[in-house]
Amino acid sequence: MTPVAIDQQVNGHSSKLDKKPITTSKVASPGDEQLVLNTIRCLTADLCQQYKGGHPGTVMGAAAIGIALWRYEMRYNPLNPEWFNRDRFILSAGHACLFQYLFLHFSGYEAWTLDQVKNYHSPATKGSMAAGHPEIEYPGIEVTTGPLGQGISNAVGMAIASKQLAATYNKGDLKPIDNKIWCFTGDGCLQEGVGQESISLAGHLGLDNLILVYDNNSVTVDGRIDNCFTEDTSAKLTAQGWHVIDVYDGSNDLAAILEGFDKAKQLKGKPTFLNIRTVIGYSSRKANTGPAHGQALGDEEVAYVKTQLGFNPEDKFVIRSKAYEYFSECKSKGEQAEQEWNELFRQYQAKYPTEYSELNRRIKGEWASEGWQDLLPSKADLPHAAQPTRKSSGIVVQALVPKFNSFVAGSADLLESTFVSFKDQVEFQKPESGLGDYSGRQIRFGIREFAMVGLGNGIAAYQKGMFIPIMSTFFMFWIYAAPAARMAALQQLRFIGIATHDSIGIGEDGPTHQPVALASFYRALPNINLIRPADAEECMGMWTLALDDKSKNTPSIFALSRQPVPLLPGSDRSKVQLGAYAVHGSEIEDPQLTIIATGAEVARAIETAKQLKSVKKVRVVSMPSQRHFDQQSAEYKESVLKQSSSLVVAIEAWASYGWAKYAHASLSMHTFGHSAPQQQLYDYFGFEPDHMATKIDSWTTRWSNKGRLPGLGEFEELLLEHVQH
Amino acid sequence: MTPVAIDQQVNGHSSKLDKKPITTSKVASPGDEQLVLNTIRCLTADLCQQYKGGHPGTVMGAAAIGIALWRYEMRYNPLNPEWFNRDRFILSAGHACLFQYLFLHFSGYEAWTLDQVKNYHSPATKGSMAAGHPEIEYPGIEVTTGPLGQGISNAVGMAIASKQLAATYNKGDLKPIDNKIWCFTGDGCLQEGVGQESISLAGHLGLDNLILVYDNNSVTVDGRIDNCFTEDTSAKLTAQGWHVIDVYDGSNDLAAILEGFDKAKQLKGKPTFLNIRTVIGYSSRKANTGPAHGQALGDEEVAYVKTQLGFNPEDKFVIRSKAYEYFSECKSKGEQAEQEWNELFRQYQAKYPTEYSELNRRIKGEWASEGWQDLLPSKADLPHAAQPTRKSSGIVVQALVPKFNSFVAGSADLLESTFVSFKDQVEFQKPESGLGDYSGRQIRFGIREFAMVGLGNGIAAYQKGMFIPIMSTFFMFWIYAAPAARMAALQQLRFIGIATHDSIGIGEDGPTHQPVALASFYRALPNINLIRPADAEECMGMWTLALDDKSKNTPSIFALSRQPVPLLPGSDRSKVQLGAYAVHGSEIEDPQLTIIATGAEVARAIETAKQLKSVKKVRVVSMPSQRHFDQQSAEYKESVLKQSSSLVVAIEAWASYGWAKYAHASLSMHTFGHSAPQQQLYDYFGFEPDHMATKIDSWTTRWSNKGRLPGLGEFEELLLEHVQH
Repeated sequence: MTPVAIDQQVNGHSSKLDKKPITTSKVASPGDEQLVLNTIRCLTADLCQQYKGGHPGTVMGAAAIGIALWRYEMRYNPLNPEWFNRDRFILSAGHACLFQYLFLHFSGYEAWTLDQVKNYHSPATKGSMAAGHPEIEYPGIEVTTGPLGQGISNAVGMAIASKQLAATYNKGDLKPIDNKIWCFTGDGCLQEGVGQESISLAGHLGLDNLILVYDNNSVTVDGRIDNCFTEDTSAKLTAQGWHVIDVYDGSNDLAAILEGFDKAKQLKGKPTFLNIRTVIGYSSRKANTGPAHGQALGDEEVAYVKTQLGFNPEDKFVIRSKAYEYFSECKSKGEQAEQEWNELFRQYQAKYPTEYSELNRRIKGEWASEGWQDLLPSKADLPHAAQPTRKSSGIVVQALVPKFNSFVAGSADLLESTFVSFKDQVEFQKPESGLGDYSGRQIRFGIREFAMVGLGNGIAAYQKGMFIPIMSTFFMFWIYAAPAARMAALQQLRFIGIATHDSIGIGEDGPTHQPVALASFYRALPNINLIRPADAEECMGMWTLALDDKSKNTPSIFALSRQPVPLLPGSDRSKVQLGAYAVHGSEIEDPQLTIIATGAEVARAIETAKQLKSVKKVRVVSMPSQRHFDQQSAEYKESVLKQSSSLVVAIEAWASYGWAKYAHASLSMHTFGHSAPQQQLYDYFGFEPDHMATKIDSWTTRWSNKGRLPGLGEFEELLLEHVQH
Repeated sequence: MTPVAIDQQVNGHSSKLDKKPITTSKVASPGDEQLVLNTIRCLTADLCQQYKGGHPGTVMGAAAIGIALWRYEMRYNPLNPEWFNRDRFILSAGHACLFQYLFLHFSGYEAWTLDQVKNYHSPATKGSMAAGHPEIEYPGIEVTTGPLGQGISNAVGMAIASKQLAATYNKGDLKPIDNKIWCFTGDGCLQEGVGQESISLAGHLGLDNLILVYDNNSVTVDGRIDNCFTEDTSAKLTAQGWHVIDVYDGSNDLAAILEGFDKAKQLKGKPTFLNIRTVIGYSSRKANTGPAHGQALGDEEVAYVKTQLGFNPEDKFVIRSKAYEYFSECKSKGEQAEQEWNELFRQYQAKYPTEYSELNRRIKGEWASEGWQDLLPSKADLPHAAQPTRKSSGIVVQALVPKFNSFVAGSADLLESTFVSFKDQVEFQKPESGLGDYSGRQIRFGIREFAMVGLGNGIAAYQKGMFIPIMSTFFMFWIYAAPAARMAALQQLRFIGIATHDSIGIGEDGPTHQPVALASFYRALPNINLIRPADAEECMGMWTLALDDKSKNTPSIFALSRQPVPLLPGSDRSKVQLGAYAVHGSEIEDPQLTIIATGAEVARAIETAKQLKSVKKVRVVSMPSQRHFDQQSAEYKESVLKQSSSLVVAIEAWASYGWAKYAHASLSMHTFGHSAPQQQLYDYFGFEPDHMATKIDSWTTRWSNKGRLPGLGEFEELLLEHVQH
């Protein structure tokens, strides 16, 4: 039971880990800890080997960190994984999920039986929880990670959530929120831009409830990290406003890890970064190599590891009772912590009934009481002059955000342009900044779109339903945030994404800022609402849809115009949830032509309809959400589009991709955009009503001559040749 | 003609810029420089005011930096903007394009007349070059910027390109490549993750030909940067392996700027970061505020600025002859530099004819001589055992990359999994690392997907056609890189993107790693080839298509399988360029059913076709590229799909979005994926041939009973209910 000798050369620090016994000052039985370490290493080797795959190295190298976290440092109750004031643990290095699964098992999460852990990399058996990356659905998993770097942003979001709640609800010595956020990162997450954006913002905000644990094993899939990453990470984090603690032998020196963690919990004013050097694949001869990262060790090497660690190479999945005993007090400690908190919360209820009531409602995931829809102005009360839909959306921000503490709203440096600022807003800032305090609900994310949405996911996941983050930037830059928006959809986390300046309508900024294809991604993505309202009235419906309980598990992105659009006589907020409806000519029972349009193009479509010569019975359909339209009955769809008897054409200043499902033809963008004032761009790309009417007239004439509707393969893009000019 | 007094408080450094004359040790006439500075500030105010928009502040604040760059430091020939050995200037803060346009005008780029600069924010008049962000098409613009952060990555890419060429071709004292790469960045680009990823990698690589000029004005759209960004950037860059030079009064102290630049040009072993504090909107009373960043100053303030700077507020666009004279030697210096280089290159030709010949061919944008297709194995010589398409793609990497110096190939830490390593590869590394040298063509991008592709764009843009970067990661992580891939398509820069593990076929990694919707984005995006080959033979066609001259201005992404697929009897490399063709049953003239499939699903589609009971005459079409199929004639399309007479169904393990254009129904993914071995996932989601055959049989039976083909609105997703289990 002696660890193998391994030369460790990490970032210039060398230490000979030669048969060094594990050290800790906290407990009396270092022998037990060595047993636990060895058990976890052997188990890991077995678990990967049984499926000849997986990521053994990090678990074997960082096992002592896991002991420190689950056995000593973190506050949680394995018997009630959802206990509100628990510490949150986020495994940003999601591929090392086995690390988390094993410690959930040992610390007493009942669902995480050994059989369940053995499901790692297993068939899709019903009820299997041990996925290849940790998934939020399962006990003890706070957030789904895997795409590297995003776990750090989620953790920063959780730290914001906790700070914001504490500043809002904690009173004197009654502090129902005082937990810590622990994030475990590898080398990869620190290389990813989203990790760096998040680190920068966390340092700025001084989030001293956040502890970032760097498993610095300096090895990735492709081998030694010094082939691509040689910066001085500790110095960098210091420059970014973090406390930094270095630990030099994280595979053995439990005492140093514990000392570091204890210190991190005490440090104030800044988040803390623990740079813990470990040896990937520790105790295998593959230690310190790329293969230890992402491959099973192989039968021979598994046997070697077991022999080295005093286990019988013939026996698999061996856990001696002492190993379980070592973790036995996790449950009692957790139960006691929760009981003490329950008592505190009872006192809180007695002393602060109003705050208690709100907090308790929010813990249950309810953001508002009934009737919030009535806070929105009626159509008659909406501005009747043309205005941008981004501004109309802001009416709802003003109406709701100040009133409900569940909302936090912020922007990636476009607060006013995106209309997410609100009355009497307080910035979420460290009080010493003089700019705001931690009770603030307006977050300045900086020019960090990806981190913004990653943070939002963390805020939304902190206690599901407790927060609704509102986040904004130009629609084009939702491409920077797309990897995080996808993770929200995957995890069923609700956010509101404000995506303004949503087309060539942004004008002078030019093609780099004009989205053409991005909507296709969001429309194809499962479980996300991409809503593009035609006017202020549809903006009311859009918000109502996104905030309705039906959208509780679904993020929404609102694509909004920079340019003004008129309030349409036929628009109807109640129909946004249907995805599409006749906004003009609904009285026509047997249209010859149906024009579908979205957003700022709807008013143009109505103008176009009026100018048509070839057909007189024309309907215009506003389709703010393809996704919601798809969910309607066949009868409803036919009643709106009349596609079995009328020609259908779509008008949208984005790519035509996807429109063949709804229309026989489209007027679309065929190239990237251009730099010019928006009105001239609509002309330049062929979207002026008179031009569109000419195009449609010629097309409808052609098809009425044919005496049938176009079939598959006959979809046409009526502005295609317009590219040339 | 005295600058206004402004209190400057930047990152803790305070300096009173009170009527301080501009200082420089290099020239004799500081008065002229002050005139030039003032001229540029007044011109900027006028140029923005004429269209009541734009970004005046940076230009006014950083004008002295512009003087230093164009008048003193950079080597270029305004009379030949494409001179090969020129320094490259990249404006990462693309919204400040007026900065670049004005200095291109003053330094003598003939195309950049004052009238042309006045087109800034103008109508889309033909030939207008002064777009709202700089665009690569125009003289003196190396790369299109605007989406923040990416300019830094482009600059790092250019520095890599220059280093790699120098190491490859420079000989003794004959060095045809010895230029510098200058990148101008604002606060935003330094906050963006892609900027940080690129900075980290540039530091690692020790690119001492790169100078990053930070216009540290500490103000963004939303105001003072200290509301979200308070890190010590200089210390951070030091920690990341950069030389750092601080300049404290960049709006006036030209001497300090020049001293910094001179030093930066001499420093060795690391890239240099110049942290230059400036005052945004300098000389306006809006200086140091958010509005100075992105709004015209207003008539009154424009008049104030002019009065302050000794100009008549009534006169617009005033340029005194002394201002032009000041820049007059830029042309002669540039011409002389080019002539000297031409002489050097003649000597080089005489002494190193082989290297000269290759370099000269590459300068002209030709990567290979005729006949390179013959280097690929014939179908008979391809492995006949099933193998992953990622591995088949690697056959081409091995066949071509070692032979042609135009290729650089690398990965975001998945070199072996994506099969982009090649025989006798040398890593692109600083020689001191012991890992490689700058002649290396294998780049270790680290876990930085976005920067990888941003760098690739810089490499591709260095001298168009000179390099073809090959970059790889899992397909899912092409979502991290999507903002840069889009910029390649927009700029018509060719790269080869290797996107492996392209579906649920990745298996155990689970839903976070399984793309469902991403293909819809790339298919909708203009000017990019998303190619998903069915087998090794189609891999040959895919590479041939991407490397053909027809794709010279188009990036390609190859979606490749993790799992093995058989070599299909009917596959044909020559047909990949057609986008789709009958891979099975092509002899059937009148199919009852046509099945379209892509990638790894094609073999499953053929199996499914064989198991169908309801229809016997079934064709299977492989559609590796929707984009190329769209470009074919109506006749060809009908000949392949027979859609006017046969039912058409698509099989693809991605979302159905977009398939209604080609098929009456699809078998698609309707949710995110799952963690399990890939074969079980295909079953879990309904893609086993027997299950698909059952679904299709029931559907075709239904429609043959109806006696007609489905019309618009009758598109069906045949696995939709499969979500539920």
